[in-house]
Formats: sequence, structure tokens, C-alpha cells
Amino acid sequence: MLTLTRRERFCAAHKLANPNWSDEKNEEIFGRCSNKNWHGHNYELFVTVKGEINPDTGFIIDLKWLGDLLKEKVVDPFDHRNLNLDVPNFEGKMVSTEIVAIEIWNIIEADIKAKGAELFCVKLNETENNSIEYWGPNR
Amino acid sequence: MLTLTRRERFCAAHKLANPNWSDEKNEEIFGRCSNKNWHGHNYELFVTVKGEINPDTGFIIDLKWLGDLLKEKVVDPFDHRNLNLDVPNFEGKMVSTEIVAIEIWNIIEADIKAKGAELFCVKLNETENNSIEYWGPNR
Amino acid sequence: MLTLTRRERFCAAHKLANPNWSDEKNEEIFGRCSNKNWHGHNYELFVTVKGEINPDTGFIIDLKWLGDLLKEKVVDPFDHRNLNLDVPNFEGKMVSTEIVAIEIWNIIEADIKAKGAELFCVKLNETENNSIEYWGPNR
Amino acid sequence: MLTLTRRERFCAAHKLANPNWSDEKNEEIFGRCSNKNWHGHNYELFVTVKGEINPDTGFIIDLKWLGDLLKEKVVDPFDHRNLNLDVPNFEGKMVSTEIVAIEIWNIIEADIKAKGAELFCVKLNETENNSIEYWGPNR
Amino acid sequence: MLTLTRRERFCAAHKLANPNWSDEKNEEIFGRCSNKNWHGHNYELFVTVKGEINPDTGFIIDLKWLGDLLKEKVVDPFDHRNLNLDVPNFEGKMVSTEIVAIEIWNIIEADIKAKGAELFCVKLNETENNSIEYWGPNR
Amino acid sequence: MLTLTRRERFCAAHKLANPNWSDEKNEEIFGRCSNKNWHGHNYELFVTVKGEINPDTGFIIDLKWLGDLLKEKVVDPFDHRNLNLDVPNFEGKMVSTEIVAIEIWNIIEADIKAKGAELFCVKLNETENNSIEYWGPNR
Repeated sequence: MLTLTRRERFCAAHKLANPNWSDEKNEEIFGRCSNKNWHGHNYELFVTVKGEINPDTGFIIDLKWLGDLLKEKVVDPFDHRNLNLDVPNFEGKMVSTEIVAIEIWNIIEADIKAKGAELFCVKLNETENNSIEYWGPNR
Repeated sequence: MLTLTRRERFCAAHKLANPNWSDEKNEEIFGRCSNKNWHGHNYELFVTVKGEINPDTGFIIDLKWLGDLLKEKVVDPFDHRNLNLDVPNFEGKMVSTEIVAIEIWNIIEADIKAKGAELFCVKLNETENNSIEYWGPNR
Repeated sequence: MLTLTRRERFCAAHKLANPNWSDEKNEEIFGRCSNKNWHGHNYELFVTVKGEINPDTGFIIDLKWLGDLLKEKVVDPFDHRNLNLDVPNFEGKMVSTEIVAIEIWNIIEADIKAKGAELFCVKLNETENNSIEYWGPNR
Repeated sequence: MLTLTRRERFCAAHKLANPNWSDEKNEEIFGRCSNKNWHGHNYELFVTVKGEINPDTGFIIDLKWLGDLLKEKVVDPFDHRNLNLDVPNFEGKMVSTEIVAIEIWNIIEADIKAKGAELFCVKLNETENNSIEYWGPNR
Repeated sequence: MLTLTRRERFCAAHKLANPNWSDEKNEEIFGRCSNKNWHGHNYELFVTVKGEINPDTGFIIDLKWLGDLLKEKVVDPFDHRNLNLDVPNFEGKMVSTEIVAIEIWNIIEADIKAKGAELFCVKLNETENNSIEYWGPNR
Repeated sequence: MLTLTRRERFCAAHKLANPNWSDEKNEEIFGRCSNKNWHGHNYELFVTVKGEINPDTGFIIDLKWLGDLLKEKVVDPFDHRNLNLDVPNFEGKMVSTEIVAIEIWNIIEADIKAKGAELFCVKLNETENNSIEYWGPNR
């Protein structure tokens, strides 16, 4: 088994708040993460892809192609945005790191499959201490 | 000369926008940094203090004291906040990294002087690529 | 599959020495790591937990809860201690990174299960070049 | 399951070019990576080994032994070399990170097996954004 | 005093060799760094600029402008090149990190002055252990 | 002005305790750092040297020579030791990071001068959050 990992970064605002809860309940459960005026992060994204070596190139897939895909489909729409307000993918959703990681998986999976490879893991670091890894719906 | 550096971190939302300019002008000058719905960062702060060794302790100043000072005066009021909306220090100010670094200097300088040491540098990393260092008004 | 990783750190002294061996044999096998006057490390701990998303919070488990658990059960008893002398968990044991990682797993596994999640991996970095990952007794 | 990871580094020149293709085709597929005068990287290598704890030492295998093995068999022959021209392992091969990672696996696997442990993963970072992980031919 | 630092990266091949010396002498003085088939590095560049805050923007200079300048004048001509063979700035020069750092200073100083700021330091990391800082001809 | 920085690392045990104070006073002032059974750190050392370029080599001084000097004079005697008990330099001294940094300066200054360069700064990181920089007795 051979996998390849590409790192990208984006800076965004967000907050954690369940719309079915009162402000007090949100504050109790999410603490400062529910600050109504938002906070933000330098998100660090690691996308891992599994595949076979193409004997002509020595590549699983072209890392430049993967970087460009991530820039077009994830970094450009997420970077310097408010994930809750500006990014349609999160309309009506909680914007936890878990859900952002799953959403990134859903955004890029088909493009990677179309290249003959398989999306293996989406890892998203919210801070240097906190990370989420999504390994897809079938594992 | 002997200096000591303490690192702390905070995550906050902000935007760059000159209130005297139109939205178009702000967009032209600040690009995505002026997104009206905010964005955010994991700010990384390095505070450097200059002093003499206290022969009883071997310390310039107690790093735990410095960490506690930064947590009380900077991290607690800035972390998981919107710097423009939630932090009174930035009322009526541009919230560039330059101005945040200078403000942090102003917040902590007297406390460090009162301990018999001298504030030497405030370095603030906005991202892994962008940093500001403020060396005080007299250098 | 969805996993979440929390990083914590602790600084501790230790040494490697098999009590059934002579000093010469310990020196031969463990080299400088068996220095009778101890040495120490800044240990860096990554705890990975597996689970389902709670639809109310968007979380697998609350990262703040996990951080507090690690601080109470691991960082507080291990940090600024001598692992061999001060930490009862290592009484009569070799204090290799392998055994410290397994011990941390044993200390925290039940608490994580009680929260409805599953402990997936304990990774312990002894230096920037040397790490151990314990994946539990059933894998 | 218990694994152990050792990090080593080497600096080398290389280029990507398929000898069956014209310069134009190589330029089109590999872009700047096919620059005929070479370019280079600080490669960062993580070797992960799986095994049981030896009760006498508390070790899976001796990390110093593993570091010495990697220095002798990988770092010494690769470091400050041109991977295409100076390293016989790559004669007639594409020198992509994928193929370098697989080659490192092949170079060290038998030595690790002879120590009673199992090679689990070879991870090779070409830059801070691009990595390959090889998990062996049987996974 | 207020300074601002921008990080950029480039990957390049080079070798160290004094053209007035024999191969043996070069090997004796430069060791593996004089390998005739080249080696390479992931160079990490930190450019520090000194200036006053522009009250309209809150900036010393626009970090995006500085990043674009470095990409156009340094990263684009140096990245994925052989510094000795492909970059005219090093024709007839030793390509030590010292000389690369000074050359970068000379390439960008006038553009920064033209923006009303002052180039303060060029720091160039060749590896994680080896760095050069050039503070200009007047300090 | 041109400076060069070399990084080295060592892992050691130490404690903070003023021999003229009671255990209670030491505990009150130094907290956990005075634990009688020691604790330890992965110290990270950055040595900065100032000088002119040698036109034959393009070097201020040979970084390999500097690395070897630091290994012989600092890393070898300090690594995997107890700084208080095993290292004669600290006999009768407080082993704060400040005093370790100054001692390293004193150990290496003459050798660097003898090479025609000038020791400029010794930076010692005790943890990722705590550092000391010693700039010598004349600044």
C-alpha cells in the first residue's frame, strides 16, 4: 500500500453554536467557542490519497494537481472567510472541526477517484493541540 | 546582555478595514483580509524581556510569572474573541498585526518594569509566513 | 471512521536500567540512557480517540474534556517528576518510552470508554527523532 | 499493537524525467521538477517498525540500533548525493518520492526482520507540503 | 522600532567548490558539499523589513506585496534550479549560504526602499540546523 | 554584518534549588522545578557567530567545524547527564536556563575567537515556550 499526503492551509472565522439551544446552553456546552462575535483559526489540512504507481511518471497522482485541486475546491472558498456565514457547505450545520473535515472529504472525493486514486484520510488541525482525522464512510 | 522569551498563543477573529474608506477601496487595498464577515488566526506570541540575573534564583524573572501575566492580560481577553468587536483596546483602531503587537507591548510593559526587568521585544506571528516584531518606542 | 487527536506535553527525568543486570551490563545495553544520575526529556503526547459524531455538538468528544482528563491523569502526575522514582505506575518497571505509552493507555482507556468513545492510539515522542505509538492490546 | 518511529534526514539533488520521453514532454508533465540541471531537497525520513516488547529492555528494538542502520544504509549513501547519478539503487528508475520511499523499504526490511521486528511504514517528506508513505507490498 | 518578517521557501541544487582549487583540495575543505554531481536543499527564507506604520492601513508595508516581490525576484528564479548553473547572480561565485543570503539582500533592497521601508535582515536556513543572517553592509 | 547560526540538542536532568534555602522556600519559589528527584528537558541550543566571509570558502566559519565544536564541548558532556550532579561547570551554581546559557558561552567563546570570528548569541530553549538568549558580557 502506498499513500501520498499534501498539506494546505487556510485562515477562517467560525463559532460553535447549536441553533436549537439557548445562548446560555451554548455557552455552557461550547464555552468560548460559542462567542457570538466569532473567533478564528489557521487551519492546517493534510489530504492523504492511496493508489498505485503510474510507471510513466513514478507518481501515485501528481502532487501539483492535488495541490491545485485543494486550492480551487477548499482553500479558495474557505480561506479568509467565515465558515458559518460565507461557505454554503456549512449552511444549517454545526461548524466543528469534525464536520469541516467530513465536508472536505465530500468536496474532493470524486475528483480523486476520477484520477484513478482513492481518498484515504483528511486530517484537519484546528490548533497545534487539536486535530481531526476523517477516514471516510466505509472504514 | 541577557534576554528571556516566553511563547503564548491565542485564537481570534478580525478583519482589516479603514472606516474612512468605501467597501470597494477596502477590498482593493486589503483584499480578502477585509471580508465583512471576518476571518481569523491562531496568533503565536513571543515576549522577550531583558534583565540581570537574580543571584538567589538564577532567573532574570520567573517565567511562570511572565506566563501568568500574559495569560491574564493578553491571552484571556484576546483568545476566542473578535479583536475588532470584543477587545476594547482596538476600539477605533485598525486591527493589523502591527497594531496588535504594539498594543500588547503597551498592556504589559509597566508590569515587567515593576518586576525590575525591561520589555525588549514583542513578536506576533499571524501565520507561519507573516510576523511582526515591535521593539518599543525608544529603539 | 472518524478520529480526534489531542496533544499534551510533560517534562520528566528517567533512566533505563534493568535491576537484574550489573551496572556494566546496563551501560553496555542502554549506554548513556542508563546514567545513574538520570537524564530527562520534554515528552510530547498525542492521544487519538475514535467515535461517532454527536449531532447536538458536532463533536466526537469534547476536546476540552479530553485535555482536562489528560492534564489530571497524566500531565499533572508525570510533569516535573522522576518517572522511575516519583510515579507509582512505574514501580518495578522499565521506564522505556514503550512502557510509558502503554501505561498512559491503561490510565485513560476506561474514562474515554465511559464517554462513549474508543481509545485508538497513544503516541509518545521522546525526542524529535524518537517516537512510540501504542494501538492497544486488541490490534 | 506497538510501533516505533525513527526520524532521519538527508539532503540530495534529483530530477524527474522519463527517459522515453522528449524534453518537451518531460517539461509538460513534470514542469520544473524536470530541470536538466537538477534541483534538490532536505528529505525527512520516518521509519516505523512494529514488534513486541523485549521484557529485558522494555524496547521493541533499540532505537539507537535503528538510527545507526538508517545512517549506514540510507543516510550515508544518499546524503549530499545526486539520487539519479550517484546512488546505484536508482539506476534506470524514475526518482520520484514514491520510488525513493519504496527503495528505502527494500534496503532496510531484511535487517529489521533479522532483529525480530517488522517494518511497518516508510514515510518520506520531500517538502513540508509533500509526503509519501509506503506500507509495504502486503497491505 | 517596528519590523515585519515574511517567510518564503525554494528548493534548489548547488555545490561548494572553489574553481582555483584541485578536486582533492575542494573535497578536503568542503567534504560532501563539493560532490561534483550536486546535492540540494529546501531553503527557508525570512526577510525582515523595518518601517513606520502607515496610518491608513495599519501596515509597515503590505505583506502580500512583499510576498509577491519575493516570489517574483527570488523564489521564481531560484526554485527548482541549480543555483550554480541556472542562476546568473551566482556566475563566478561560491554558492555558500552566506553568499546566497547577501545576493538576496542585493536583489530586493531597492524595491523595499522604494516602498518607503528599510531592509533589515535576510535570514536563510539551509537545513533545520544551519542558518545565515545578513544584516546589510552598514551594520 | 553577517551572522551564522548552528542548532544542536541535548537531553538532560536538572532541578532548581537554592542551597541556602529550606525545602519549603525552594518549593515556594521554584514550585515543581525544585522536585528533589529531578526532572528533565530536551534542550535546544542555537549558537550565533558573527564574522566576515572568507573569500576562498564563501564561509564565515565552517558550520561543520562549529557543529563538531559544540558536540565535543557541550553536547557530549551535557547530553544524558544530570546537569547539577554530573557536569563540573555547574558545581555550586543554580542550574537555571539563564546560567546554562551563560556557561555555554564561556565554554565556546575562546575557540570561536581563535577561528577569527566572534560569538554573538547563545539561545537555549528549555521547552517550546521558554527560551533564554545570552548576548555576552559586553552588550
